[in-house]
Amino acid sequence: MANQPPISALPIPEEGELDPELQKYFAICREKLGLVPNVLKAYSFRPERLRRFIDSYNEIMLSEGPLSKLEREMIAVVVSAYNRCTYCLVAHGQAVRRLSGDPILGEMLVMNYRMADLSARHRAMLDYAWTLTADPMALSEADRARLREAGFDDAALWDVAETASFFNYTNRMAHALEMQPNREYHAMDREPPDAD
Amino acid sequence: MANQPPISALPIPEEGELDPELQKYFAICREKLGLVPNVLKAYSFRPERLRRFIDSYNEIMLSEGPLSKLEREMIAVVVSAYNRCTYCLVAHGQAVRRLSGDPILGEMLVMNYRMADLSARHRAMLDYAWTLTADPMALSEADRARLREAGFDDAALWDVAETASFFNYTNRMAHALEMQPNREYHAMDREPPDAD
Amino acid sequence: MANQPPISALPIPEEGELDPELQKYFAICREKLGLVPNVLKAYSFRPERLRRFIDSYNEIMLSEGPLSKLEREMIAVVVSAYNRCTYCLVAHGQAVRRLSGDPILGEMLVMNYRMADLSARHRAMLDYAWTLTADPMALSEADRARLREAGFDDAALWDVAETASFFNYTNRMAHALEMQPNREYHAMDREPPDAD
Amino acid sequence: MANQPPISALPIPEEGELDPELQKYFAICREKLGLVPNVLKAYSFRPERLRRFIDSYNEIMLSEGPLSKLEREMIAVVVSAYNRCTYCLVAHGQAVRRLSGDPILGEMLVMNYRMADLSARHRAMLDYAWTLTADPMALSEADRARLREAGFDDAALWDVAETASFFNYTNRMAHALEMQPNREYHAMDREPPDAD
Amino acid sequence: MANQPPISALPIPEEGELDPELQKYFAICREKLGLVPNVLKAYSFRPERLRRFIDSYNEIMLSEGPLSKLEREMIAVVVSAYNRCTYCLVAHGQAVRRLSGDPILGEMLVMNYRMADLSARHRAMLDYAWTLTADPMALSEADRARLREAGFDDAALWDVAETASFFNYTNRMAHALEMQPNREYHAMDREPPDAD
Amino acid sequence: MANQPPISALPIPEEGELDPELQKYFAICREKLGLVPNVLKAYSFRPERLRRFIDSYNEIMLSEGPLSKLEREMIAVVVSAYNRCTYCLVAHGQAVRRLSGDPILGEMLVMNYRMADLSARHRAMLDYAWTLTADPMALSEADRARLREAGFDDAALWDVAETASFFNYTNRMAHALEMQPNREYHAMDREPPDAD
Repeated sequence: MANQPPISALPIPEEGELDPELQKYFAICREKLGLVPNVLKAYSFRPERLRRFIDSYNEIMLSEGPLSKLEREMIAVVVSAYNRCTYCLVAHGQAVRRLSGDPILGEMLVMNYRMADLSARHRAMLDYAWTLTADPMALSEADRARLREAGFDDAALWDVAETASFFNYTNRMAHALEMQPNREYHAMDREPPDAD
Repeated sequence: MANQPPISALPIPEEGELDPELQKYFAICREKLGLVPNVLKAYSFRPERLRRFIDSYNEIMLSEGPLSKLEREMIAVVVSAYNRCTYCLVAHGQAVRRLSGDPILGEMLVMNYRMADLSARHRAMLDYAWTLTADPMALSEADRARLREAGFDDAALWDVAETASFFNYTNRMAHALEMQPNREYHAMDREPPDAD
Repeated sequence: MANQPPISALPIPEEGELDPELQKYFAICREKLGLVPNVLKAYSFRPERLRRFIDSYNEIMLSEGPLSKLEREMIAVVVSAYNRCTYCLVAHGQAVRRLSGDPILGEMLVMNYRMADLSARHRAMLDYAWTLTADPMALSEADRARLREAGFDDAALWDVAETASFFNYTNRMAHALEMQPNREYHAMDREPPDAD
Repeated sequence: MANQPPISALPIPEEGELDPELQKYFAICREKLGLVPNVLKAYSFRPERLRRFIDSYNEIMLSEGPLSKLEREMIAVVVSAYNRCTYCLVAHGQAVRRLSGDPILGEMLVMNYRMADLSARHRAMLDYAWTLTADPMALSEADRARLREAGFDDAALWDVAETASFFNYTNRMAHALEMQPNREYHAMDREPPDAD
Repeated sequence: MANQPPISALPIPEEGELDPELQKYFAICREKLGLVPNVLKAYSFRPERLRRFIDSYNEIMLSEGPLSKLEREMIAVVVSAYNRCTYCLVAHGQAVRRLSGDPILGEMLVMNYRMADLSARHRAMLDYAWTLTADPMALSEADRARLREAGFDDAALWDVAETASFFNYTNRMAHALEMQPNREYHAMDREPPDAD
Repeated sequence: MANQPPISALPIPEEGELDPELQKYFAICREKLGLVPNVLKAYSFRPERLRRFIDSYNEIMLSEGPLSKLEREMIAVVVSAYNRCTYCLVAHGQAVRRLSGDPILGEMLVMNYRMADLSARHRAMLDYAWTLTADPMALSEADRARLREAGFDDAALWDVAETASFFNYTNRMAHALEMQPNREYHAMDREPPDAD
């Protein structure tokens, strides 16, 4: 595959040129994930921005909080589906497959979340994320009320909003850089669970 | 999976109630594809419409013609991506994976065809299919000229147009019936080719 | 009128070059309708596609079924109004004028069906056709329920959906080919009924 | 036709209650046009506004100027087609049929002006009117330059812009009042000219 | 500021070339407002149109009627915000600041009226003006009913509709002419009231 | 003004309950800016998120880099204008007024940046930010090339993209929380410079 498109439309430094802390972070990625996500390589063009991105990302997606990690990944995929952001759909679609153990759910959210077999809680959560992405000016207290009825408290409501908002940032960075996802994601976690 | 959503929002007759010719067609599907595509089951609510659908589908997608079968499936996926039609994205996404031997291509077309690594011919073909779907009134001789420059003759130009138009019909039927794709498609043809 | 635009952007064979069955079909059209609809001439560039088109068209628009022929023509016009498809607006606008005996109804549906003096049944039917055309992803059980309340059973609901979906196919073919309607349609059935 | 929808969603005074000048104006309309256009009746709810409307209308549509009366009516129809304004499409569609002697032109402009057989001058004029209606923020010097190349001088350019702008006012008034057109318009000027 | 963009994309005659009545009108503007609004200068390219514009404007914005002058200016700003019309936002934003004595209200309406602290009456009025601008075909009796519930009688409902419609005309004229607002408006009426 | 809408739709803790570092940060804001921006108060509901927001904000808006601080604020305003985000329009509109010394520029960018008197560099920068906000999928190498022609190198191109992307995040947070701007911003920096 000599002919693949580049990871980013802007230059990417050699990994050895990065400061030791980032080099170590990349090494940990390789160990834990089996790869360095291309978004990190693309951001390494601006190391200070990469550090901020890692911090924000880990806080929003991985810290303890009222949304499960799967729920955050579901929001990531649905926002990225609206924005048709290939990078995030590939990377977070894989995360939904892995965390849910349901490879079909991940694919359904990429295509049209309204056709997925969702709980009332998740349907409300994803409807909110979709509207916040597509028409943020349209949201009002009625939309927050619907989330509350579906069991989201104030902190959870914040996290739905911030996770969806964050991917409106990352999706645009990925579009601006024409960021290519790691090819390894595509084949991961496609096996349906045994009990299927 | 007792709890899956139904295949169609309208009733589906028992297969044994269908006329012998359709029963035979379903049997052939099982033999050749390993499944009866749910679209056929959904259409069996109206057997005469099912017969017409099969005829049109086979003519447009499978007959000899200036577009390869893969090219027709690529158009099917890109039109369905615009319309966010889960059924067609799942079924024809799988077909692109199978016919191209490139599982990543299928997924890319589902997400955003502009990020796929396409030949000039295929980019022109898919741009035309996208515009014909999104804003058909906008097309003019300039769009046909671009297809001709990319190597499409009159008959090929017809087929690009008719294939894209046809999926604007099927996508709407699938939305109207909330048609669920066969779950088997999701896992098929995910393996990258050896040479990758 | 030496200077009229061509019927289709793609070539049209001489009628005498068509196979005998299609020649006979054109002759019947001339006898019954007083003209060969230009859509048939445009499709004769690909005779096999023309045969499929005639079959599908006759099944959807003319077969026995739960929708009256006028209702199917009303759907055709409203879908074509959304898509601003001149060919179908001219040809099916004339059909609404003829079948309804109400030349104003035909013109109103071309312009904005919401201003026409419609029964609750027809308003529900045309609202569904409009949404299925404009935003198919937005439809849900609530939209089907509204049709059921307006008296549509499962088979009728299918026909509303399939008729509207079919014209999303034909409208796009007409746009792709820049298909010109027969000029004769314009003057037909303009007379208001005597009782007006 | 006891059951027709009302001319306006707001009240309309008896003609005899209007001041003598307006009564005289209505009488002249009946004599010259064979009818009092419903827009005048609808506006008679607010006689002072009616007077201003008549003044503006006559100045923009009927005064001497660089655009022919037919050209102004063509702009009226195309703006009203974008806004799907039934009242103006019926009334000004009839005017295009009458002034052009070409009943097909009127109908084509109602449906999709891009399919009409237009001179370069008229295509440029209607493209400008369409964009000024659909996306006024998008216009720039390049759009004015295209009009100039098509033969429009400064005064003509003004009139294209003001005529299109004016119908963005009247279309909205007609929508707000759900204004019904006089039924007589529909049948008028449908005959193709002898030389056709 | 030698380098400012011109007031209008079309020529503007010397004020001394205008007829005496218009010269007098401009002099009154200077006396009362401290400036001649650029819209009047731009319109002076076509003096007859300027006279009609002044008449219509004064009738709609300044005559006695069921809407306060502030309410009419609020509608002007919200319609102009939808259309992103710089001229009208500057001139009528200043008018809202002046008439309301609330400089923040004027700015809020320019930005997003839904975030302003509005009475139920004003929220209903501005929602109607926004929809009549953005999607006039969508309005129906339900929208008029909502205005009536908020206290608008038939005459007031007319004025909401006509004021909003009128600015859909003026906004387009301003876009077509790339009309620049007088620079003096920007600094006027920015002081919050003492009691703030 | 007892009756103002709350700063945020979600709760805000007493400042004294925040950890000492954040209390100190708020004190510095008061000293330097004369106020604590409401966005910081709204975020203090989730102190860890507030810390990340401050870090990202300061890096993107205030660090040394290829874009001037004014240019970053211009991007912030134009993105917020597309999204109709009141909070960011008020706060960053003031920043543009202050940094440019041109109160009219700030207001023009809020209303419609295409009407502002911009250098070719700034027009290209703001066109890119607008498209990345409105239709990120549409961007391609041609858009980056236009920025390069306008003098932006790779690092500057990154910053245009990241600044615009970041405000697509903050705008959505502000909409989700219905965040109210500090009232003090409105009157600040309205004075035109002496040399005007």
